[in-house]
Amino acid sequence: MGKTEGTVHVVILAGGSGTRFWPVSRMERPKQFLSISETGESLIQATARRNMPLGGGNAPVWIVTNGLQEVITREHVPTARILTEPFGKNTAASIGLAAAHICKEDPNSIMVVLAADHAVQNEAVYQKTLEEAVRLAQVTDNLITIGIKPASPNTAYGYIKKGEHIQDNGFKVNRFFEKPSLERAMQYFDSPDFFWNSGMFAWKTSVLRSLNEYAPQLFSGLSEYTEFIGTENEKKELKKFFEKIESISIDFAVLEHAKNCAVVCSDDFGWNDVGSWDAWAEHYSKDEKGNLVKGDVMIFDSENCIIRSDNRFVALVGCENLVVIECKDATLVCARDQVQDVKKIVAALQANGRFELI
Amino acid sequence: MGKTEGTVHVVILAGGSGTRFWPVSRMERPKQFLSISETGESLIQATARRNMPLGGGNAPVWIVTNGLQEVITREHVPTARILTEPFGKNTAASIGLAAAHICKEDPNSIMVVLAADHAVQNEAVYQKTLEEAVRLAQVTDNLITIGIKPASPNTAYGYIKKGEHIQDNGFKVNRFFEKPSLERAMQYFDSPDFFWNSGMFAWKTSVLRSLNEYAPQLFSGLSEYTEFIGTENEKKELKKFFEKIESISIDFAVLEHAKNCAVVCSDDFGWNDVGSWDAWAEHYSKDEKGNLVKGDVMIFDSENCIIRSDNRFVALVGCENLVVIECKDATLVCARDQVQDVKKIVAALQANGRFELI
Repeated sequence: MGKTEGTVHVVILAGGSGTRFWPVSRMERPKQFLSISETGESLIQATARRNMPLGGGNAPVWIVTNGLQEVITREHVPTARILTEPFGKNTAASIGLAAAHICKEDPNSIMVVLAADHAVQNEAVYQKTLEEAVRLAQVTDNLITIGIKPASPNTAYGYIKKGEHIQDNGFKVNRFFEKPSLERAMQYFDSPDFFWNSGMFAWKTSVLRSLNEYAPQLFSGLSEYTEFIGTENEKKELKKFFEKIESISIDFAVLEHAKNCAVVCSDDFGWNDVGSWDAWAEHYSKDEKGNLVKGDVMIFDSENCIIRSDNRFVALVGCENLVVIECKDATLVCARDQVQDVKKIVAALQANGRFELI
Repeated sequence: MGKTEGTVHVVILAGGSGTRFWPVSRMERPKQFLSISETGESLIQATARRNMPLGGGNAPVWIVTNGLQEVITREHVPTARILTEPFGKNTAASIGLAAAHICKEDPNSIMVVLAADHAVQNEAVYQKTLEEAVRLAQVTDNLITIGIKPASPNTAYGYIKKGEHIQDNGFKVNRFFEKPSLERAMQYFDSPDFFWNSGMFAWKTSVLRSLNEYAPQLFSGLSEYTEFIGTENEKKELKKFFEKIESISIDFAVLEHAKNCAVVCSDDFGWNDVGSWDAWAEHYSKDEKGNLVKGDVMIFDSENCIIRSDNRFVALVGCENLVVIECKDATLVCARDQVQDVKKIVAALQANGRFELI
């Protein structure tokens, strides 16, 4: 693919905190640095690797992160260009920041925007889908979201209803839907028109000029900041810009208002957002009683348990449906049907000033 | 009480391994060094303290232990005289060893024999009972066991059926019974004649001459060894003696055969042998959901759990009826109804050569 079609730049948003993966995930080492593969490759490393082939190969990778995670991010993906936000201000700011840098260097480019901490099992189908989104971005001015055929009536994901056909698997977006009730999720699941909103995007970097229409404050701040990219005042100006702007997601700031939204619809490629220890365990094989055991662990009379020991010996006797995670300075014992509540621990630790544990 | 009535010597048997208290209890620091009180007093310290008043006060305390535990035993009970066995050879040998030393110094004495790792809640009733046993030992040549009115049809204890009345609460022993089935335990519990065999004894030290009748090998070995007490060859001779003798309990070696067995029957004085983490927890107060929490612990939506953290932070979410014990190098997670199986872990660790963990 030549320059005329626009070089593909991969933008990985890596500012998440991953509190549901406590105690392994911490402020300074959140979920994207966890591994879900036997090879030990971290989620962020896998994300960078599987997107490199986009647009003909060796797509430049940009990672937007924060100061706390800058060093570890560089260790995990040494080839990436890292943009460090002075504060977390949600995805509109992160994507705007990346767009400003890419646009300054390469105005005729395509941005693919991805989360750092999602898992993909079928990389071939994934790459085919992303290539199609890139092609559609090259030939139209649409803001394209990847939609995934629901594998279940999942209530933890947003949904997209597809509209008018554009080309191949590309459609105009009829409407975005927030995380639904189970009843609604069942309806969406039964309909051929609804797709999971993966939070993966592709568009011409220049198309983000439409920010001017929907988020004028963000746009003008970005425009001012762009002038300072590459100068000695870059950091200072970035801080000024981030201090001023609103904390808002790209969905609320732009996609829900813009008329040029499209969706590239794909079969499920084994995608999930690895939202809990339970989801993490799906990526590993279990023993004959359904136990997942990682590390120095002994189990007796136990079933359907997830046990991960990073440091010290752990023994289970007579346990069922438990998640036990042992790490350097803390141990979690959690019922499998309450793994979403692990974030309550992090909130309570924060409220109690136990910052060394979060 | 004067010399004529025989000075009381307290003999504490402290060679146990306490594998059901893994991971806190270890070969080098078994159960008797655990605390079950808010004051932090260990079981062995409590045992020494509550028996000191016997026989008019300041009864000499002897502790029979092994080489591994000699130093920690001395730290816990600095005033005790410590007898160190070269090998564990069960209670007949331990009691014989203590008797030999005491008899050599004080032939006209009374021995009170106790386990190091039992708990007593009502010390006043306990002491009254022990004083009565001492009195009976002073005026008769009986081998006296303390019998406790069962508080439950416990199947983990042996039982004693009382016979002919001697004096006060003292009776001849009709028969000793091993740990019963639940059905039998219910019968014993309903009968006025059955008492828990506490494993606490009192007798004239000299009465152990009856060993000659029931355990002649042990008796002759002891007699030989006694000649060397206080000489430079004492240790060497003790080893020779222990190498030769049978490993047998005082119950099997003597009490089940002897005709001069008596029982002093007592109301329950809140005695238990602290046989598991569950029994340990009985000694502490719980929160309104029945959780016992010791150490740096947070719990959410959890009920009837026992959580002890000695070193690092532990968090529980959505757990019920669990025992979670965290210590320096290991963590136990166990269903409360399977606490007896904790010893399986120790057995497996031993089988796998993980000696650092036992």
